[in-house]
Amino acid sequence: MEKYNKERLARASEAVRKAGLSQIIVSDAAALWYLTEEEIHPGERLIVLVIPSDSDPYWVRNRLFPLKSNGIADHPFEDGEDGIGLLASLLADGRTGVDGVWHSAFLLDLMGRGGNRTFVNGSPLIDALRAVKDEEEIRRMKAASLINDRAVRRIRDFLYPGVTEKECAEELRKIYKEEGAEGFSFPPIVSFGAHGADPHHSPDDTKLAPGDSVLFDIGCKKDHYCSDMTRTYFTGEPTEEEKKVHDTVREAGLRAEALIRPGVLLKDIDKAARDCIAEAGYGLYFTHRLGHFIGIREHEAGEVSPNSPLAAKPGMIFSIEPGIYLPGRFGVRIENLVLVTEDGCELLNHEDRGWKAGLRHGK
Amino acid sequence: MEKYNKERLARASEAVRKAGLSQIIVSDAAALWYLTEEEIHPGERLIVLVIPSDSDPYWVRNRLFPLKSNGIADHPFEDGEDGIGLLASLLADGRTGVDGVWHSAFLLDLMGRGGNRTFVNGSPLIDALRAVKDEEEIRRMKAASLINDRAVRRIRDFLYPGVTEKECAEELRKIYKEEGAEGFSFPPIVSFGAHGADPHHSPDDTKLAPGDSVLFDIGCKKDHYCSDMTRTYFTGEPTEEEKKVHDTVREAGLRAEALIRPGVLLKDIDKAARDCIAEAGYGLYFTHRLGHFIGIREHEAGEVSPNSPLAAKPGMIFSIEPGIYLPGRFGVRIENLVLVTEDGCELLNHEDRGWKAGLRHGK
Repeated sequence: MEKYNKERLARASEAVRKAGLSQIIVSDAAALWYLTEEEIHPGERLIVLVIPSDSDPYWVRNRLFPLKSNGIADHPFEDGEDGIGLLASLLADGRTGVDGVWHSAFLLDLMGRGGNRTFVNGSPLIDALRAVKDEEEIRRMKAASLINDRAVRRIRDFLYPGVTEKECAEELRKIYKEEGAEGFSFPPIVSFGAHGADPHHSPDDTKLAPGDSVLFDIGCKKDHYCSDMTRTYFTGEPTEEEKKVHDTVREAGLRAEALIRPGVLLKDIDKAARDCIAEAGYGLYFTHRLGHFIGIREHEAGEVSPNSPLAAKPGMIFSIEPGIYLPGRFGVRIENLVLVTEDGCELLNHEDRGWKAGLRHGK
Repeated sequence: MEKYNKERLARASEAVRKAGLSQIIVSDAAALWYLTEEEIHPGERLIVLVIPSDSDPYWVRNRLFPLKSNGIADHPFEDGEDGIGLLASLLADGRTGVDGVWHSAFLLDLMGRGGNRTFVNGSPLIDALRAVKDEEEIRRMKAASLINDRAVRRIRDFLYPGVTEKECAEELRKIYKEEGAEGFSFPPIVSFGAHGADPHHSPDDTKLAPGDSVLFDIGCKKDHYCSDMTRTYFTGEPTEEEKKVHDTVREAGLRAEALIRPGVLLKDIDKAARDCIAEAGYGLYFTHRLGHFIGIREHEAGEVSPNSPLAAKPGMIFSIEPGIYLPGRFGVRIENLVLVTEDGCELLNHEDRGWKAGLRHGK
């Protein structure tokens, strides 16, 4: 097992103790990867990692899940054997956390096996650990975002009159492969013209016309970690309003980023961007939260929004992605990932935020 | 709402009553589609259909899930509002079934809201209904399998020396599209030569050599219902052993099919095929269950296996798929879907089971 996995397990154990739990039962694939670097796709079969407050973690698993030999105690059972019974026999009494995504069929079965146990949702414990990246995670997140910087430049330079949104998405797949990524971290958003006003538009067969705006919201996975960034280009000379909207969105992002340092409430960061957009008269057209956490998954627990209870801590990585969406006309979003540092923040994306995109004359 | 959805809801309500439950909380996407034809991808947000034993079903849902107007009572709530609190306020007391795949976070939250309720896994109730197809489902299952018959013939006739497994899988995607299917019901298995000995082989870049065996295990979705069939071809003159294995597998399937009628135990159907293969000396090389149920999903609850407690009922549709796998050499599997009728069974696949495949000279 890698050193950083040992450290993560130790932090998880400490969190279990501090929360006054006897143990947590971890079943979420991303959490298991975070803690052990085992690649697990649970499906219908039982596999859990139990993290007790006062002893070593152990697996309880259907033997059909292959595990690397990694020094964690292992309690396998055969397909058809009573896995929940085995788990019940190993658990301590007391308050027990279970993963929020664990299937209710398992939990109800376990509850029926006696033992002096009560159950609570244990996911927030692990989510809080995952929200603060360690050195190895920061290294990987930076590598994924560096690829994304190159990818957005390449896909911008790929544009030509008549290319379709879907063709851009396919080209991106190739670009990521050439740049050494494992694939998309989420299906790419490619939005021409009025499609940009739908923040979640799926690429279709619409052809690019010279002068259209083009929004790319794209990300890749590299060494299991996700990148995610958005740029919006104008392929012709933008109108005064297009310029104003683009300027406002860029300014909103810069104001938010300028605020970020340890201790600042994430809702205040959201407010800085939201106020900037409202001041320009577009408050009604910024329709989503300012940002989300990201790591092993493209969306992780925690958000930069008016409701967020969180304060920034060194090691947190989240997106800052203000947008203005004018229905039927166009939309602009600019998104970067930021890392909270000891005295401010560091951008993980370095690509220019400007609107200019030339068009090639053809394929 | 369609007539058949009303009937399915009525059957579900009756099953809830018969099981002595006050209500069940349905959250599984396939079960929701079966009952209401609403396409729902639950993700992290709450959406459930409650089916009480003695009153009409109702939705409790985050308003972000759009629903067709379909005459089912609707209790929407806004993102950020207390959906579980709303659900708790609407539920009756008493024994309550919840879907086995419902997230534990929801169940634990609901358990903490008081009410004189106990919880059990309610999935088997709906699974039992889904195992017996109604007229509309049978019509759709037949249509999906007719496409599959044409697809397997077309992909067989597509074979040429040097074509790769992956290229066959891509060609299949095109074939299904041309034949009017919505897409694959599962990633197709294309296995040349020794790859056929791995029942779950993924298509790779292996090139077809004349004389190789070729196994296609393929299926599509049409109008939300799945097909699934397997054929194994020899592209040259098979050896005596290849012939014997192919003959045995075909014979095993025919013997199993001949047994099928209402009341017969599914484990006895499995045994008929298993015995046939054992008699030919290949008992050790038939390494999986004989069949699985299928419908909205390519694998549904219920199996044709030595452990199955089920007896055949009119309207059940399952696969019959004996196989013999000789590691490092080749494998043969022949699979058809069968519908249990009032007095026997009806095959949903009509394509020849023989081994003969010619090869084109090239692309």
